[in-house]
Amino acid sequence: MIEVEVKARTLPETLDKIISLGATFSGTESHEDLYFNHPHRDFRRSDEALRIRIKEEGARLTYKGPKLDGLTKSRKELTVKIDSPQEMAEILAALGFVLSAVVRKRRTKYVLGDITFALDDVEGLGSFLEMEIRGEADFFEEQRRRVLSLLEELGLGESIRSSYLELLDEKARKESAAWKDRPP
Amino acid sequence: MIEVEVKARTLPETLDKIISLGATFSGTESHEDLYFNHPHRDFRRSDEALRIRIKEEGARLTYKGPKLDGLTKSRKELTVKIDSPQEMAEILAALGFVLSAVVRKRRTKYVLGDITFALDDVEGLGSFLEMEIRGEADFFEEQRRRVLSLLEELGLGESIRSSYLELLDEKARKESAAWKDRPP
Repeated sequence: MIEVEVKARTLPETLDKIISLGATFSGTESHEDLYFNHPHRDFRRSDEALRIRIKEEGARLTYKGPKLDGLTKSRKELTVKIDSPQEMAEILAALGFVLSAVVRKRRTKYVLGDITFALDDVEGLGSFLEMEIRGEADFFEEQRRRVLSLLEELGLGESIRSSYLELLDEKARKESAAWKDRPP
Repeated sequence: MIEVEVKARTLPETLDKIISLGATFSGTESHEDLYFNHPHRDFRRSDEALRIRIKEEGARLTYKGPKLDGLTKSRKELTVKIDSPQEMAEILAALGFVLSAVVRKRRTKYVLGDITFALDDVEGLGSFLEMEIRGEADFFEEQRRRVLSLLEELGLGESIRSSYLELLDEKARKESAAWKDRPP
């Protein structure tokens, strides 16, 4: 099983276009994601992630390995449901892991056949669309073509490969550089 | 809330004595405990433990901090319920934690008021009794006296402060030393 996913910044008309494609509303979710860095391995360098995601219906701990190739976002992903995100965060802290970022977003989901459209309103970053097809690895190329052509059809040119965490980091770096470069 | 606990090796008559005290049967459990060592901190030296416990009704991840004093087994304990011990073990492995031991036991529980008697049959170690009272910290001294006097009443002299993990380690060290000292 693999997951083909693209992400782009939305335009004001994006939701209307998704609906006019025939996609149907499938729910909204709030995500609060706590990212932790490893005590002795810098996850930002090693392209790994350890995350506690808190949703209305429960919480999960997820590890994401480095991306497996340069073209796609495919990577090893391991997940367990947990009954207490607070207790899990305390265990990670006791093991030396450091809370490095909190990402909050509101996700509205639409579905069209095997495609999921997630419209994300990310605190501090703005609005994004993530399109995802899950399927057998054999059809990877076909699925990749489908999501990329849908992106074009929606008029959303650029596919973003960075995670929200990376985008928030980038924003913080730019803001801090702008602050340093301000006129005296 | 604290937990006062003593442990001792059982005698053939121990179960009968517990029952004659008025304790009633409250169930049996199978535990499979996977212990993990930290990638950069030797938990055997730092007196910490990270454990996945698999029981019939589900699994938990537990962190135990160093013992807080020399007299009791009191220590910080953090626990989350997890839906998949396999996935949790894979996450820990991906983070660099090393599976250091597996401890299997069959536990039979008896209850007398606020006291729990756990008769443990530990694979590779034999039979033990763990007596536990949970209560408010204010009554710690009283509870400690009660469990120690019960230990005497049951004719079980020596209280063992080592964990099963430490007892298994000790046994392995002795066996390995005996092997080295064998006559040529």
